[in-house]
Amino acid sequence: MSSWYKSWILLTGFILFYVAYLLFGAFVFSTIERPVEDKLKRDIQVLKEEFLNQSCVNATSLENFLERVLQANKYGISILPNSSASSNWDLASSLFFANTLVTTVGYGHTTPLSDTGKAFSIFYALLGVPFTMLVLTACVQRLMHLVTYGPISMCRQKIGLEPLAATAVHFAILLLVVVLGFFVVPAVVFSYIEDTWSFLDSIYFCFITLCTIGLGDYVPGENPGQNFRSLYKISVMVYLFVGLMMMYLILRAFHRMADLHGLTSFFQLPHCDEDIEEDKEPIIEAGHEDQHEAEDSAKPLDPASQTSYNTINR
Amino acid sequence: MSSWYKSWILLTGFILFYVAYLLFGAFVFSTIERPVEDKLKRDIQVLKEEFLNQSCVNATSLENFLERVLQANKYGISILPNSSASSNWDLASSLFFANTLVTTVGYGHTTPLSDTGKAFSIFYALLGVPFTMLVLTACVQRLMHLVTYGPISMCRQKIGLEPLAATAVHFAILLLVVVLGFFVVPAVVFSYIEDTWSFLDSIYFCFITLCTIGLGDYVPGENPGQNFRSLYKISVMVYLFVGLMMMYLILRAFHRMADLHGLTSFFQLPHCDEDIEEDKEPIIEAGHEDQHEAEDSAKPLDPASQTSYNTINR
Repeated sequence: MSSWYKSWILLTGFILFYVAYLLFGAFVFSTIERPVEDKLKRDIQVLKEEFLNQSCVNATSLENFLERVLQANKYGISILPNSSASSNWDLASSLFFANTLVTTVGYGHTTPLSDTGKAFSIFYALLGVPFTMLVLTACVQRLMHLVTYGPISMCRQKIGLEPLAATAVHFAILLLVVVLGFFVVPAVVFSYIEDTWSFLDSIYFCFITLCTIGLGDYVPGENPGQNFRSLYKISVMVYLFVGLMMMYLILRAFHRMADLHGLTSFFQLPHCDEDIEEDKEPIIEAGHEDQHEAEDSAKPLDPASQTSYNTINR
Repeated sequence: MSSWYKSWILLTGFILFYVAYLLFGAFVFSTIERPVEDKLKRDIQVLKEEFLNQSCVNATSLENFLERVLQANKYGISILPNSSASSNWDLASSLFFANTLVTTVGYGHTTPLSDTGKAFSIFYALLGVPFTMLVLTACVQRLMHLVTYGPISMCRQKIGLEPLAATAVHFAILLLVVVLGFFVVPAVVFSYIEDTWSFLDSIYFCFITLCTIGLGDYVPGENPGQNFRSLYKISVMVYLFVGLMMMYLILRAFHRMADLHGLTSFFQLPHCDEDIEEDKEPIIEAGHEDQHEAEDSAKPLDPASQTSYNTINR
């Protein structure tokens, strides 16, 4: 029981430290980028006034003007008057940027303007991306018992289902709940809050976000004059974090089910097994523990042995 | 030996099918988006002519004009004359888009314009992201012997290093080679090819890309009038694929070294081990094989048991 408490306290510590890391990132990004943004904003307004004051507008002057407008827009600085009130680098927006960086979503609707900002982004992501994964993994480990093993076990004891059937039924229900709770319901909410988003746009946003593709053509809280913008941005961050957790949970549940049903061995490349055995050879000699490890890893049905390329971010 | 050939043939088949899947995606995206892009391009040129022909330019008319210009720009359609020659949805650019979608990089410098394109993106990524991971994993499995176990074994036999020292020396060399070969050298090349990119910009691009963050503020081959644009785009795709493979390789080599040096257990949450044991309970009863699996997974030092949240994309 003491170890149980200890593990929860450690997890809480991890999450608090993660929040602190995000706040630290937000603070640094805001400090670095805000002055550069303000300068660029002033420049672009001066440019606009100069353009409006010139007596004749010809194609060349318009193109020169547009080139600079589009350049500023690339960095998330709009020349339109209703956009200029809100900053891309206030604390909430910087927090949102830091969060999309460490989760590898990377919308890119705002990007660092200064060289210092770019260098800090590299440094921040280098530590932040593995840290995010560590926190998400730790949370999912806790959640697995509550959401996967508990219900499967209950299914079998209460309804008397076979292990294979119980796992399949549980996975189907979990998938349905996640699709509803993390795609359909959020999409309804987004299409309600964001004036210009259709339901398809919102579903597309949820999918592109939770796959960490993050194209950035739809980013919540970017319309001018939205109420409670900071609170909204933070809510989206929470959605992103919990959503990623759920995607990972679904993946783990799927692996487990696929293993039980023998799907994994069906999809596995024949050389994988050989390879794992080959792979371990130099390590085997290192110690007894590794010898044990090598034997285990040769099993094609071990879900954990099937690493994914996306662990690159770890 | 026959099984060795078979596994290579299967891997080649996988890669060919992957290329075919990318080409299929490129073809569909190009077919769907090209007409929409052409229409939007024509509209924006008409808008520009109308704007130039009006007798007096005031703030309101300029803002209305700019609003539509920026809207088109969001979809990757520039009003500038030198940008209008090249399409974002020709076959090479569509292939590049399909590739950034399935690798979850998602620059977002071009995004689907039509609802059909958005719906197809969801469907395409739903199959393409796990498929990419499967292909990358299969490639890395083959590469591990050549790049990790072979050299470590050679280090020990030729130089007579201890296992721990050999793994550490090998990892340091591998890291250096990857940093030079996949960050520094490509950054030099990019800063040479792309007129407006400094060396820092290029390193920042390489890092943001190979972490799959993909902010999209720097995208190669987007400057107007670049020579051999299609070939350049395809080269960047190859760089992206091989780079992701290398990141995964580094990660696997790091895990192996960390295990040997006992770093993994140092960073592991105490509850992980408990959880894994708990986790397996319902599966254990399913069969003897799973029982074996449950025992293995309880070892804190097994690298493969440490899944990462980013396998969500699998």
